[in-house]
Amino acid sequence: IAKEVAKLLEMKAQLGGDEGKHKFVLKTPKGTRDYSPKQMAIRERVFNAIITCFKRHGAEVIDTPVFELKETLTGKYGEDSKLIYDLKDQGGELLSLRYDLTVPFARYLAMNKITNIKRYHIAKVYRRDNPAMTRGRYREFYQCDFDIAGQFDPMIPDAECLKIVHEILSDLQLGDFLIKVNDRRILDGMFAVCGVPDSKFRTICSSVDKLDKIPWEEVRSEMVGEKGLSPEAADRIGEYVQLHGGLDLVEQLLQDHKLSQNKLAKEGLGDLKLLFEYLTLFGIAERISFDLSLARGLDYYTGVIFEAILLQPENDHVEEPVGVGSVAGGGRYDGLVGMFDPKGRKVPCVGVSIGIERIFSILEQRVEASQEKIRTTETQVLVASAQKKLLEERLKLVSELWDAGIKAEVLYKKNPKLLNQLQYCEDTGIPLVAIVGEQELKDGVVKLRDVATREEVNISRESLVEEIRMRTSEH
Amino acid sequence: IAKEVAKLLEMKAQLGGDEGKHKFVLKTPKGTRDYSPKQMAIRERVFNAIITCFKRHGAEVIDTPVFELKETLTGKYGEDSKLIYDLKDQGGELLSLRYDLTVPFARYLAMNKITNIKRYHIAKVYRRDNPAMTRGRYREFYQCDFDIAGQFDPMIPDAECLKIVHEILSDLQLGDFLIKVNDRRILDGMFAVCGVPDSKFRTICSSVDKLDKIPWEEVRSEMVGEKGLSPEAADRIGEYVQLHGGLDLVEQLLQDHKLSQNKLAKEGLGDLKLLFEYLTLFGIAERISFDLSLARGLDYYTGVIFEAILLQPENDHVEEPVGVGSVAGGGRYDGLVGMFDPKGRKVPCVGVSIGIERIFSILEQRVEASQEKIRTTETQVLVASAQKKLLEERLKLVSELWDAGIKAEVLYKKNPKLLNQLQYCEDTGIPLVAIVGEQELKDGVVKLRDVATREEVNISRESLVEEIRMRTSEH
Repeated sequence: IAKEVAKLLEMKAQLGGDEGKHKFVLKTPKGTRDYSPKQMAIRERVFNAIITCFKRHGAEVIDTPVFELKETLTGKYGEDSKLIYDLKDQGGELLSLRYDLTVPFARYLAMNKITNIKRYHIAKVYRRDNPAMTRGRYREFYQCDFDIAGQFDPMIPDAECLKIVHEILSDLQLGDFLIKVNDRRILDGMFAVCGVPDSKFRTICSSVDKLDKIPWEEVRSEMVGEKGLSPEAADRIGEYVQLHGGLDLVEQLLQDHKLSQNKLAKEGLGDLKLLFEYLTLFGIAERISFDLSLARGLDYYTGVIFEAILLQPENDHVEEPVGVGSVAGGGRYDGLVGMFDPKGRKVPCVGVSIGIERIFSILEQRVEASQEKIRTTETQVLVASAQKKLLEERLKLVSELWDAGIKAEVLYKKNPKLLNQLQYCEDTGIPLVAIVGEQELKDGVVKLRDVATREEVNISRESLVEEIRMRTSEH
Repeated sequence: IAKEVAKLLEMKAQLGGDEGKHKFVLKTPKGTRDYSPKQMAIRERVFNAIITCFKRHGAEVIDTPVFELKETLTGKYGEDSKLIYDLKDQGGELLSLRYDLTVPFARYLAMNKITNIKRYHIAKVYRRDNPAMTRGRYREFYQCDFDIAGQFDPMIPDAECLKIVHEILSDLQLGDFLIKVNDRRILDGMFAVCGVPDSKFRTICSSVDKLDKIPWEEVRSEMVGEKGLSPEAADRIGEYVQLHGGLDLVEQLLQDHKLSQNKLAKEGLGDLKLLFEYLTLFGIAERISFDLSLARGLDYYTGVIFEAILLQPENDHVEEPVGVGSVAGGGRYDGLVGMFDPKGRKVPCVGVSIGIERIFSILEQRVEASQEKIRTTETQVLVASAQKKLLEERLKLVSELWDAGIKAEVLYKKNPKLLNQLQYCEDTGIPLVAIVGEQELKDGVVKLRDVATREEVNISRESLVEEIRMRTSEH
């Protein structure tokens, strides 16, 4: 009978137990994930590199809410607007989760009448996209944005944004990379001279934007078939969009009779020439490629646009290499703030967004492959005891250490075995153990053990803090 | 006519201009706010104090998505569930914004079968509450949570949570504070001996929870009038909930004939006695008050509960003092993880949540009142020039400094005036100016100016980085 009862109880538990509360699907929402302590340690490294760079360039930092009034986001993202998460109407305002950090930034500038700022913002954004999580594509993901707003002499802030991308990607040692640049004015000028009607500029721009994923033939047939462009116009576009190069290509196109007669294209090419000059002064021109196929999806760009791609996965030793792709992008958006200003006053802006999820995937796989041991805590010392009945003494000592600013732990057991305490240090990478025993208490000392070398020395209670600091200082 | 046209154009602009895009309401959603660079600088200080403390106690860090499956949050918050933000059903899963970090933590533990962890998590949570923003009550706000999960000897982790609250509040110098403690088992035992029917425990507990905001008479009439409790039972509760004290009160109630005969209450009182013992070892017992009126709103607590309050606003010099109130709270929730586990396996947990919005409001007002100048960037040096046509040289030098890890800026102008460059340093607190001029370029030097003292010395180009580092090092 006891067996039967046990069986029934187990079945009941499986069916839901107390009030059926266990029947949850145990998962995070589609396209999202948790970060474990180990993943957080890697993420912190990436953030540190990025924030250090942003601060090196004199940026302030701001923060905005995770959701905005729905109308704030309306009309800013073109075809991508369908990917915006809306909140349920529970009475009150209609809200949407932010899709990027750029539109909230423009709203912030207009709302506070700021005409001049260099700021960074690191936060999560939300897109109801098809997630491809193994390749670092999520529905909730971090963007690390650096933007310069203000009326300045041409191309100086733009060049700094590219310098920043270059510094961060070099610093993170992600292998070889390339930063593609183009200009919306060159694209628009090109569309005009190729015979694209004004009304089709944005939609043809969207098609061009797909060239990094699908071949020209397919893009062409989308332009002609779906979007009703003439085959001749498409073919003329086809000739331009295969061009890429450096300053030489800019010079060449400035000589191109058709393109250089277009006012917008000429402006764009002139600015690109200046940009390359500054990039040469910054010593980074050889990693920059002027690429006429670069279009960028978002509606709000008005001038220079750019995108950084990793050229080869730097993890040949990994079984399943992470797909190569875009890790940063940005450009100039001189009209966005004006869309929010009641009087339409414009604030020229240029900025860059670093997408850390893909970078994080690469680094995570690299750590995995190298079997590098990553510490997830910074504890300097474990307060331990070799004998029983010393909980009070351990608590007293650990409290002294905390009050002195030492990172210290104690096992939450009345009478832990010394071996278990040492094992805990091995597992978590704690370098020192401060052992209290009856003899040590009598002598007014603590036995300090080095976990790696197993050496033990008695240290007087008064000099313990100093000794721990000295032994664990990073200098 | 020109005047009329201008007027009409202005009217048009006010009415909406290009495609009526300006007719936005320029605001953040109700109960939310942006953080300006200055506010962020204060916020970073608070976060640093809190994170330093959490790390000092050996905590790892995790992160979870901002939204959860709706069902994950269902049945966890009692009467507060109506405050949860739901996302719109756009196809796919039903989602809600997280209400706290505790339920996502429990979901994370159950999902990953973790039975033992000490972690912190700092992130925004969302409540459709009535905002009172001047008193630091928002709909989007940060929680800073520290929790210890695992089967341990009683009250050791609980005592550490209180030690952490004590350390953080002391460190932030917020003035005098008190940490109230109670135990859900003592409350339940008290309800039982006062004659509250089992079915009314939670709702009477909710009434008791209001005692910090409304007087006993009103709470009593809610119990009797709205919740149908007998007047005698209410009066018996009334006698208990006015009690508060230290270890002496615990001892006194252990002698209370009625209460000590209740198994739950006796367990709770025994544990509180042990807790006070550990708090005495930690040297913080005098700031702890055993308070029978402390109930805490949330459903999931099962043992010790606590709440820290600031005793007096430490800003008499401020015109509009920030309201005093709870700045941290927490407790033991031994059943929550089991609600997510398919087999109902329990993982005992205890944790504390620091609410930084109120703390932030106090510190912000204090900074405002003291007129302390807070730097919002860390720039060490501005690269400037006294003459025209030196943009290229400025860009070359600032790029050298960036590459050497120096935090440096340059004005984005071709030919800025020296006075404007110096003024920029004054405004933003940049301590040094590196001035390039034709003579300096010829001599291979840079003129380094100390903004505060106005002293200038020529430094050779090769030793510039070292000199800047030395002058701006914090040691």
